[in-house]
Formats: sequence, structure tokens, C-alpha cells
Amino acid sequence: MTTPDWAELTRFAITLAEASAAAILPYFRQNAAIDVKEGPVWDPVTEGDRAGERAIRQLIEAHYPDHGILGEEYGLKEGRSAFTWVLDPVDGTRAFVSGIPTWATLIGLSFEGRPSVGLMNQPVVGDMFYGNPAGAWHDYRGVTSAITTRRGVPLSRATLGTTAPELYRSDDDQSRFQRLRSKAQLTRYGGDSYFFCLVAAGHMDIAMDCGLQTYDIAPLLPIVTGAGGVAAEWTGGDLSRGGNVITAGSPALLDEAMAIMAH
Amino acid sequence: MTTPDWAELTRFAITLAEASAAAILPYFRQNAAIDVKEGPVWDPVTEGDRAGERAIRQLIEAHYPDHGILGEEYGLKEGRSAFTWVLDPVDGTRAFVSGIPTWATLIGLSFEGRPSVGLMNQPVVGDMFYGNPAGAWHDYRGVTSAITTRRGVPLSRATLGTTAPELYRSDDDQSRFQRLRSKAQLTRYGGDSYFFCLVAAGHMDIAMDCGLQTYDIAPLLPIVTGAGGVAAEWTGGDLSRGGNVITAGSPALLDEAMAIMAH
Repeated sequence: MTTPDWAELTRFAITLAEASAAAILPYFRQNAAIDVKEGPVWDPVTEGDRAGERAIRQLIEAHYPDHGILGEEYGLKEGRSAFTWVLDPVDGTRAFVSGIPTWATLIGLSFEGRPSVGLMNQPVVGDMFYGNPAGAWHDYRGVTSAITTRRGVPLSRATLGTTAPELYRSDDDQSRFQRLRSKAQLTRYGGDSYFFCLVAAGHMDIAMDCGLQTYDIAPLLPIVTGAGGVAAEWTGGDLSRGGNVITAGSPALLDEAMAIMAH
Repeated sequence: MTTPDWAELTRFAITLAEASAAAILPYFRQNAAIDVKEGPVWDPVTEGDRAGERAIRQLIEAHYPDHGILGEEYGLKEGRSAFTWVLDPVDGTRAFVSGIPTWATLIGLSFEGRPSVGLMNQPVVGDMFYGNPAGAWHDYRGVTSAITTRRGVPLSRATLGTTAPELYRSDDDQSRFQRLRSKAQLTRYGGDSYFFCLVAAGHMDIAMDCGLQTYDIAPLLPIVTGAGGVAAEWTGGDLSRGGNVITAGSPALLDEAMAIMAH
């Protein structure tokens, strides 16, 4: 089998992001109806989520009918190839319904089960981050730059980002997070997927979140690793399936963080 | 004395915001040098903060030489009139140095000691919020809309925003915040001044922060109150001087929140 054309697949992911943005933006800051998913926590979903995912699925089905699709809102369509698209049309729906422009559309492509192309798009701001086996890039309102992580930053000078301290539900995870936070120079909350992209772009050093789903993280991994960063599931699970994920700008910083979390 | 021309002064505040944005944006996401202010917490300041404030001060001194100016970076210039401008060129410097587009330029005008015109500008996103005694408005990339707060939302369905739980340093404040948070439907962190503006625009219901300075809050009050919202200092201090500030979309919701925080 020949190597997939990552550049072409990445350009297609950008097309998908543009189509989903057009479908989602009419619902942002409109105080539109919110449905609540069943479950232990308040988990909102809007027509913006659904419209965004439908727009993406239609394009994939038209251009790559053999590819599988796993999306947060419409589930799994089995493919007849080694490719599966992994979609979260509005990652950070809680930010979306609060009018905060830190939600994002996440579009990933896994090849033989491995996250290989990933894209994060925040169309209100005009920020798009993407990565593949050849590298990672940031596009701000049409200007594209290659990105790399920041190196040589010890934990004592690191900036750490996570969505909210309450997400560390078990005593073990809460204690791990608080130990790590207390050793970092600065902790920021509330960035959702932005933090992972800002680690990739060298503006932050650690991004972590608890209880992630596949579609929350698989699209972000090629951005982080394409920029030279590293990632781990801190309880030993399969990273591409989500769980408790920590990413860092360098292997040395990830090692330092994992050691602090271990005891 | 005649009533000040609030519309003209508001237009001038918008001019100031545009000038400061041009001065600040060249420093965003450039991994520029960070100075650290003396004090008990890590308090960064960048050349973006200073360049933004200088651009604003120059315009005020040219157009309104009698007005006083109080700015975070360059201190107080006493005026020879009832007007004092209150400036925070980069509110949320911690977000700024982390590459997160939730920092903002805050520009306020106090008249006879009362915050009367206020503006928040986030030029990376293109969001600008402003208010005066006649109302409040949101501008997104050149499209202007009048804004009003959301009414009739009880705490159990409210969205609450605050910068970080660690900012509630005293046991009393931490306990007040946690009681309130546990009764709200959704809590968001990390928005800095955005949360106050999103309360004004009816997308969130409560914004609160501990230990604010005058220049952190005085420019936001005319936006919140111009949109129909209310504000209080929960330990009884003078709101316009900062301190522990809570804002809500309606008097009923503020009363409900203050009662929960009281015991």
C-alpha cells in the first residue's frame, strides 16, 4: 500500500472545517435552544453541533465514500478502508452556549487506527491549527505559519492549561492535578481544546484534561505531535481513545510532570 | 453644568481602543519578553501592556488635556476637571502571555467619581463591548447591536463565570464561592473581563472575581449596568474601587446569589 497523501487529506480537512463553520456560526450567541444529554453532569447540545456534523459527514460521504466516520452527535459509520474520520463539531459546547469563543470544531483522520491528520478550527476568532506526519501549522485569518513546541522549559516555569478543576473527580486524579498545578508557574482554566493547540504553537507548556472521549483528543494529537510535542494517558490507557490525557511541549517536561503525578 | 456628551465620549473611547489594539497586537503570540511585577503572586507584564497604555494616554492628552488618567502601567495623572479615564491596556496579561484570546483592553471614563462610560476590546477576536448612561452595545467585526442582560433566570439555571478558583484566597471567600458554584447550573473559568461582558450581552448570568483593582472593574460597570445588569462588592466596599465584585443579569438573581454567599 502506498503512503496516503497527507497534504491532500489535510487540505480536505480544511475544506470540512470551512463547511462546518458556515453551518455552526448562525447558532452562536443567538441564545438558541439547548438540549441536555442524559448523564450524570449537565451536558448541553445545540442545533449548531448537529448542523456542523451533518455538513462534515455529507462532504466526506461525497468525496471518500469508503472512509469510516465517528462523530460525537451521529455515532459510528463503519468504513471499508483503513481511514476513519473522528469528529467533534463543537468541542466545548459549554463555552459555546455561554458565548465564549474558545469552543472549536475538531476534525481528525485515523489511518490503521492511528490519529494521523488533525485539525482544530475556531471560526469566531479566525484561528485554525492542524497537523499531520509532516508537521503542524497555525492559520490566523488566512496567514499560515509552521508551529513548534517550546523546549527547555522546566515545570517551575511552565504554563499549564486545563478546562476546570472539578473535572478531576476521583480523589487520586484531584490530588495528581493539584500536585502538578502547585509546581507550575501559571495555570489557566477554561480553554478547552485551545490549550492543546497553544502547547503545539509554543505559547503554553502543558495541556491536560480528565475523562476525554476519542473525538475530544484524537483530532488534537497530530497537531501536538506534528509540532514536536508529546502526549500520554496518565492511568496507562490507549491515548487515542481518550481518558486522562496530558500533553507537553517536550519529552523532558512530560517526564517531570508524570513523575510528580506518580507520587 | 451641562450633561456630558456621552455619545461623543463613547466614540472617543472606541478611537482609543483602536489605537491601543494597533500598539498591542504586534506583541501577541510572539513569545516576547515578560517582566514580572513584585508581589506575592506571579504577575507578568509585557511591552504590549506598556505600548497600549502609552497610545491611549497620548490621545487623551491631545484631545482632553484637562482630564485625569489612571492607568495600570503608568499610574495616576491628576486632572483639572470632573473626568478621569481609567485604563487597563491588557486585562488578563496571564491569558495574553499564554496566547489565549480572552485578554482585553479596558477603557473607562469616570465623571464626578462615578464610572460612566466603559469599553472592553478584544481585537484578536474582533469583539468590542461598550456602555454609557444611554445603554450598552456589542460590536463584532464592525456589526453593532444593542445588548441587554438575560432576565428571569434563577440561580439553578444560571451560568456563572470567574477567572480561577484559586483567586478566592481567604477561607470565607473560598467557601462563599463554592456554595454559589454548587447551586449554579454551569461554571466557566478563565474568561477574565469577557465574562462581565457576556453577562451584559445575555449569554451568561453571573460574573464575579476576587481582589480586583479599580482599573479591572470600573471600565466594565457601565457595560453591565447599561445593559440592565447589576453589581455589588460582596464585602460591602466601594464597587468602583474594585475588591470582590459580583455582577448579575437581574436584581433578583443578584439577591439570590448574595443570600447564598451570606451564609
